[in-house]
Amino acid sequence: MTTTQNNLYLDYAAATPIAEHVLEAMVPFFSDKFFNPSSPYAPALAVRREYEAAKATLAQTFGAKADELVMTAGATESINLAFHQTRGHVVTSAIEHPAVLEVAKQREHTLVASMPNGRMDPVEIAQAIMPETELVSISLANSELGVIQPIRKIAEVIEEIRTERKKHGNATPLLFHCDASQGFGQVNVHVARLGIDLLTLNAGKIYGPKQVGLLWTKRLSDPRATIVGGGQERGLRSGTENVAGVVGFSAAATWVTGHQNEETRRLSMLRDRMQTKLLDAFESALVLGDKKHRLASHLSIAFSGIDAERIIFLLEEHGVYVATGSACSANKHTASHVLLGIGLDEQYISGSLRISLGYYIDEVQLDRATSLVIDAISSEYERLGKM
Amino acid sequence: MTTTQNNLYLDYAAATPIAEHVLEAMVPFFSDKFFNPSSPYAPALAVRREYEAAKATLAQTFGAKADELVMTAGATESINLAFHQTRGHVVTSAIEHPAVLEVAKQREHTLVASMPNGRMDPVEIAQAIMPETELVSISLANSELGVIQPIRKIAEVIEEIRTERKKHGNATPLLFHCDASQGFGQVNVHVARLGIDLLTLNAGKIYGPKQVGLLWTKRLSDPRATIVGGGQERGLRSGTENVAGVVGFSAAATWVTGHQNEETRRLSMLRDRMQTKLLDAFESALVLGDKKHRLASHLSIAFSGIDAERIIFLLEEHGVYVATGSACSANKHTASHVLLGIGLDEQYISGSLRISLGYYIDEVQLDRATSLVIDAISSEYERLGKM
Repeated sequence: MTTTQNNLYLDYAAATPIAEHVLEAMVPFFSDKFFNPSSPYAPALAVRREYEAAKATLAQTFGAKADELVMTAGATESINLAFHQTRGHVVTSAIEHPAVLEVAKQREHTLVASMPNGRMDPVEIAQAIMPETELVSISLANSELGVIQPIRKIAEVIEEIRTERKKHGNATPLLFHCDASQGFGQVNVHVARLGIDLLTLNAGKIYGPKQVGLLWTKRLSDPRATIVGGGQERGLRSGTENVAGVVGFSAAATWVTGHQNEETRRLSMLRDRMQTKLLDAFESALVLGDKKHRLASHLSIAFSGIDAERIIFLLEEHGVYVATGSACSANKHTASHVLLGIGLDEQYISGSLRISLGYYIDEVQLDRATSLVIDAISSEYERLGKM
Repeated sequence: MTTTQNNLYLDYAAATPIAEHVLEAMVPFFSDKFFNPSSPYAPALAVRREYEAAKATLAQTFGAKADELVMTAGATESINLAFHQTRGHVVTSAIEHPAVLEVAKQREHTLVASMPNGRMDPVEIAQAIMPETELVSISLANSELGVIQPIRKIAEVIEEIRTERKKHGNATPLLFHCDASQGFGQVNVHVARLGIDLLTLNAGKIYGPKQVGLLWTKRLSDPRATIVGGGQERGLRSGTENVAGVVGFSAAATWVTGHQNEETRRLSMLRDRMQTKLLDAFESALVLGDKKHRLASHLSIAFSGIDAERIIFLLEEHGVYVATGSACSANKHTASHVLLGIGLDEQYISGSLRISLGYYIDEVQLDRATSLVIDAISSEYERLGKM
């Protein structure tokens, strides 16, 4: 962890380093326990058992069982697989991650606008559901704003529509998918309590390995695979298992959920401290997204009339790394669809930063980073003759 | 590498341990260089450059360029993605890996039988190609028999058919896909010289990480993604990149291709030594598959009237690990479709072993393993009163 110890990494929403103990848990499966879990001899069967045990431990962290998981190569594949379980009309939000929006675009879909605070209104989602709608997909927390969505409330309105459908003899299935890649480890995720049918999680956002994710599903009446072959993962996703990756995912999930309460308290204290200092320093600064329903890690903040990309370059010289919008949108140099989606004024959109905190930042580092952010923005305002 | 140093692992075709230097190359990307390659700040851009450099090095090992690769989560996904590039009729062989056969089953297809020696006849493949055929898929080497297919000859007959099609105004595309997961690192793979259009490779078979693979393609006229989202990998395969995995794949490919000549010489010497001893010990033993066109690592050998699964259990007690058929078929307890495909007598099918050698076995270990195999088969014949 040299880099993050020396530097002031404030982009945990884009990527997290693998925690040391997570990597330690993975390493034996690269070398000593490298066997193909489908092989018939004892040490391979032992690997199969450890793989299943890791899935069981992982599943427990969100109230599920091992045989309900389909391990995937990250969240994007999981989202694609979730959508693949239905074919009809989809309802999702206009501020979803590109992974959701791109899959939705492949079929009939309705994008529901968010409220200006980045929250989705369950009633508006219900109104967008048509008799032929088969899937609703709403992420647990928005990756840019950190705003937490009322998943349970949305599940309730969906359940009401299901009941209505039954009453009227409409046999069209209606599934509710939640991408919890952002938010898992900070918000309680319990599939039954949330009332969802499909859940996406991502190891790469919780100090586990990249390209490791999962789709959780209840028993599907008509399961459809996107990748066929040897029949692994309930036949829904073939390929020799990534045992090391899944063991790492399991260790990471156990760790973040086990430290969830203390860590979210710590992060929200740090985040609020930074937020206050930035608001004090700049009159025109605007905190984006609902402040109550927000991940402890996230601070999305906009500064009128400046170019956030310039701020990123000014900050990186001092080892401070922050984002504008999501990493996926950022490298395409287009305005964030999320900030457009919440109706943010143009003068703010290009001046918005996403600051996201995590395990390896402490108060001293946070204060140093905050000063450097203030310096960078001040110098930019000076350059523009605005201060 | 404790396990393989202490034990007599003879199932390298099912899985290979990650080579120590490969893991060493990967580790920095788990921790220090964990940044999302799509992030905009300098250290993330540096990770992006290292990722692209790893792809370029990897591509060079088979005569290709970085921008022609689509990194996938293993061979199965790559095969699915290859097939997804066309929609029409497919020609493949009856002895392909389940990953190919299962994708082929999803559409109109013709399975061409192999010759009794496990080789495919280019003329028979040509005869199976219909005017509406869009894809031919033949693996470089059969995973159970180790038999190497005449890929270049097959490419030539396909090219003739393309020329004929042009002449007759048939605009149907005809692509040639080759799964070289088995054989890469032992057989020269150079995409232009092979004359193929789509190539699948798998890091997990060449001492690299599992769930890391690639699809190589020439520029496609109508590229089709199976996983959409952030638009990574030329838009053909979205998801945050597995930088550590691809760096490992690149290191592994460089290593195996760099030592290809000496290692195949060493392995074929060891394999022939074992083969001779087994044939000398058992009159009824039958070496399966073409002996000339065969991977140096592979020995597929059948013993009349015994149950190979019992041999596996007898051997595992002594730390000798071998397979019956492929790992994918093995755990389903069905007769190998490959052995059925080459027309093997029933008395031999259930008594066939796949022995596959690799880097971490030396002559002393090989001789010890050979003695143990002979002992196990002898004791089984004795038990059955056949010796």
